[in-house]
Amino acid sequence: MMGVIAGFFSYETNKSVVVKSWSVGIINRVVQLVIITYFVCYVFLYEKAYQVSDTAIESSVITKVKGFGELNNRVMDVADYIYPPQGAGVFCILTRIIVTDNQFQGRCPEVRALSDFICPSSSMLEFKDFTIFIKNSIRFPLFDVTRGNFPSTLNITNCTFDKDLDPSCPIFRVQDILRETQQNASVLAKKGGEIGINIEWQCNLDLNIDRCVPKYSFRRLDAPFENNTISKGYNFRFAKYYKTEKGTEFRTLHKAYAVRFDVMVTGKARKFSLIPTVINVVAALTSIGMGTVVCDVILLNFLRGAEQYKAKKFEEV
Amino acid sequence: MMGVIAGFFSYETNKSVVVKSWSVGIINRVVQLVIITYFVCYVFLYEKAYQVSDTAIESSVITKVKGFGELNNRVMDVADYIYPPQGAGVFCILTRIIVTDNQFQGRCPEVRALSDFICPSSSMLEFKDFTIFIKNSIRFPLFDVTRGNFPSTLNITNCTFDKDLDPSCPIFRVQDILRETQQNASVLAKKGGEIGINIEWQCNLDLNIDRCVPKYSFRRLDAPFENNTISKGYNFRFAKYYKTEKGTEFRTLHKAYAVRFDVMVTGKARKFSLIPTVINVVAALTSIGMGTVVCDVILLNFLRGAEQYKAKKFEEV
Amino acid sequence: MMGVIAGFFSYETNKSVVVKSWSVGIINRVVQLVIITYFVCYVFLYEKAYQVSDTAIESSVITKVKGFGELNNRVMDVADYIYPPQGAGVFCILTRIIVTDNQFQGRCPEVRALSDFICPSSSMLEFKDFTIFIKNSIRFPLFDVTRGNFPSTLNITNCTFDKDLDPSCPIFRVQDILRETQQNASVLAKKGGEIGINIEWQCNLDLNIDRCVPKYSFRRLDAPFENNTISKGYNFRFAKYYKTEKGTEFRTLHKAYAVRFDVMVTGKARKFSLIPTVINVVAALTSIGMGTVVCDVILLNFLRGAEQYKAKKFEEV
Repeated sequence: MMGVIAGFFSYETNKSVVVKSWSVGIINRVVQLVIITYFVCYVFLYEKAYQVSDTAIESSVITKVKGFGELNNRVMDVADYIYPPQGAGVFCILTRIIVTDNQFQGRCPEVRALSDFICPSSSMLEFKDFTIFIKNSIRFPLFDVTRGNFPSTLNITNCTFDKDLDPSCPIFRVQDILRETQQNASVLAKKGGEIGINIEWQCNLDLNIDRCVPKYSFRRLDAPFENNTISKGYNFRFAKYYKTEKGTEFRTLHKAYAVRFDVMVTGKARKFSLIPTVINVVAALTSIGMGTVVCDVILLNFLRGAEQYKAKKFEEV
Repeated sequence: MMGVIAGFFSYETNKSVVVKSWSVGIINRVVQLVIITYFVCYVFLYEKAYQVSDTAIESSVITKVKGFGELNNRVMDVADYIYPPQGAGVFCILTRIIVTDNQFQGRCPEVRALSDFICPSSSMLEFKDFTIFIKNSIRFPLFDVTRGNFPSTLNITNCTFDKDLDPSCPIFRVQDILRETQQNASVLAKKGGEIGINIEWQCNLDLNIDRCVPKYSFRRLDAPFENNTISKGYNFRFAKYYKTEKGTEFRTLHKAYAVRFDVMVTGKARKFSLIPTVINVVAALTSIGMGTVVCDVILLNFLRGAEQYKAKKFEEV
Repeated sequence: MMGVIAGFFSYETNKSVVVKSWSVGIINRVVQLVIITYFVCYVFLYEKAYQVSDTAIESSVITKVKGFGELNNRVMDVADYIYPPQGAGVFCILTRIIVTDNQFQGRCPEVRALSDFICPSSSMLEFKDFTIFIKNSIRFPLFDVTRGNFPSTLNITNCTFDKDLDPSCPIFRVQDILRETQQNASVLAKKGGEIGINIEWQCNLDLNIDRCVPKYSFRRLDAPFENNTISKGYNFRFAKYYKTEKGTEFRTLHKAYAVRFDVMVTGKARKFSLIPTVINVVAALTSIGMGTVVCDVILLNFLRGAEQYKAKKFEEV
């Protein structure tokens, strides 16, 4: 193999000495360029080897829903149609309720009493006009950086989230979320469903901390089961308990169709760090130096080797 | 050091020239083999350097329990014994309830009224026959791939999970889960406990997407505290509130022993990516080439160095 | 470039041969030292390349609050002031409640009945004396290691967490948590707020497993919104439902100010693994060997190249 490669470098005239130096220079420059390109484009720009990153985000979510509904001609407010009420990251807006009144335990619970009534789902459609206020506070433990999803100075009394016009407002209209996820509001209200609200934090902490803001996206979570005829929508049962004058307990069973919202928070922060930067700069310089020198050595050997090879061959002849 | 190594390569007869070329060839092939083995076995097969991976899984879990229980001769259904009722990823099946009836606030709440009754835990044992339906929808944000834990076409009306016979059915019998975690059902019903249901997604997105299915495993979560006599089992207190005719509020206090189920979802997806593949193939080829050439150069130098070394030595003599 | 470097190595007297060997040795030792330092300090000690790590922690949290409060001269216990009651990782201690009594649905829910009463927040301040018992069981799936946040043998009947004196006791006084997070208890009780309890597991599984214990830290989660006048504190609304003798449902609306506690668990385990260790030791040895040999070759070439260069130059002259 050596001989074959060396063959490329066998020259005989004086002119060839100039050609040799010239090709050594060209090859060196090409090798240097490849190494520099690799380190600059891939290691530093693409892999960001001068930074350390943290994805172990600590997150806390508080939600608050506002709006009024109507169920069987009774006005309902958040205390009635939000479950659970404490404003967690996962919560349900009840859209349709089938009530089975006055069940005395001991009777077979699956036989519905005559007093059943199904609230007309069409009149619940106003849930589109509800608003969801999301308060999300996160922390990147590695860098001890804490951020909220809206600035302290923001007036949140009358803003509405709009990804183009008002992307920092933390108040979302259900209607806008449904539009983004291409949901039919009336089908959703009738059958129930799940919607994911994703809050994504991508923070380069070397830049101004004010640029560390979240990006919101919405999607239908039960999309993978869309074509399954049996497990469609979302509903659950719960009971309210009462006592008669005589102290006998009875209950009202509710089968609630609901839209469940899951607020999911993901994030990654990156920040300059001395050690990986030094290591990678040294690696880059070493590679450039080594590349250049090894090139020189190899080429010189090939050239000299070729000459000696020829000299030997002539002697043998 | 140079001299010592060079010593290994000092030959004198014509025959030695053949030996030299032959050993250079052998060493080159061995070096190439080591480098190729390293890249093929470790970098590409073990580390899968041609793929990028995503562990930042977005997951949403919905559960639905089915089955009937009996408490103090009263039939109970899901609305009575599942807490919280909305079908979250963490839920409790109440297995035993100590009820303190008709507490009027103002009385010392820790003094139990005479009307206390403890539901006989043996008659609750039927919770083994309950089934848990789990609907899990996940997304790998890096690849924008969404999957459900069962195929849209699966008929889930009468299937039961069996890790050998029916591993894709999302309906789990509590009895099977208890068997897997080696729990004694009657002890668990009496003292309460915690069971983890782990859903693990390991997806190679270069293969058919239908092979991206979850693996279920079950374990007892409170195992680390098993030998602690004080903090055994799992129970919590809750109250139901009533009003007398005159509007005075009173409550029924429940101390509920329960089996708590935690559905935990973990996952990792991998997919071919051009940039790391190109980088690693180039690195492999460069290493093989460099290895070969550096071998040649080193060995040639040793050979030539040895000859010159001897020549010099002879001159000195 | 070759010529410039070679210039540094052009010597003429016999003495120079000794200098040459000496400088080759020095440079070799320096190169070896740099490479060894890099591998020992950075690759092995800093990056811990002999271990594999797992951050995909599986965690389950159970909490139990103890203490008595007083609301409007009525004694309250955990069943009344903890929401949700099942002892999840996220729970609220109600500190102030505004009650709107006897709302019959159909009336506008936002008009408060005259029977409103605001519980005096000062008398709730005793929530500082509450204790929170946290039971946290974790698992590192990669190593199949399960740990609890306190030893099975610990007597937890009368211990209290103290980060210096008793760091393994899992019972936390609210007062201590408030002090750590620099919260004013009376402001917090009046407005509500959020406090994060972080449990951090950093486990080197090559050491004794008993050293794999968690570290607790506390912080105020709504700190990023501290200066926002509108979205201050934490509160939510919930209703209790009653029925009149005639079966008409009515409710009591509660606006509850609460301190919400979020138990957040993060963790990382590391353990010796053969494959990365072998790969990195081989890489270290190869680098040291290569470094030494390449140094030798380069320097020998420079020396010889310089001599030949001069020889050629003399011939030309």
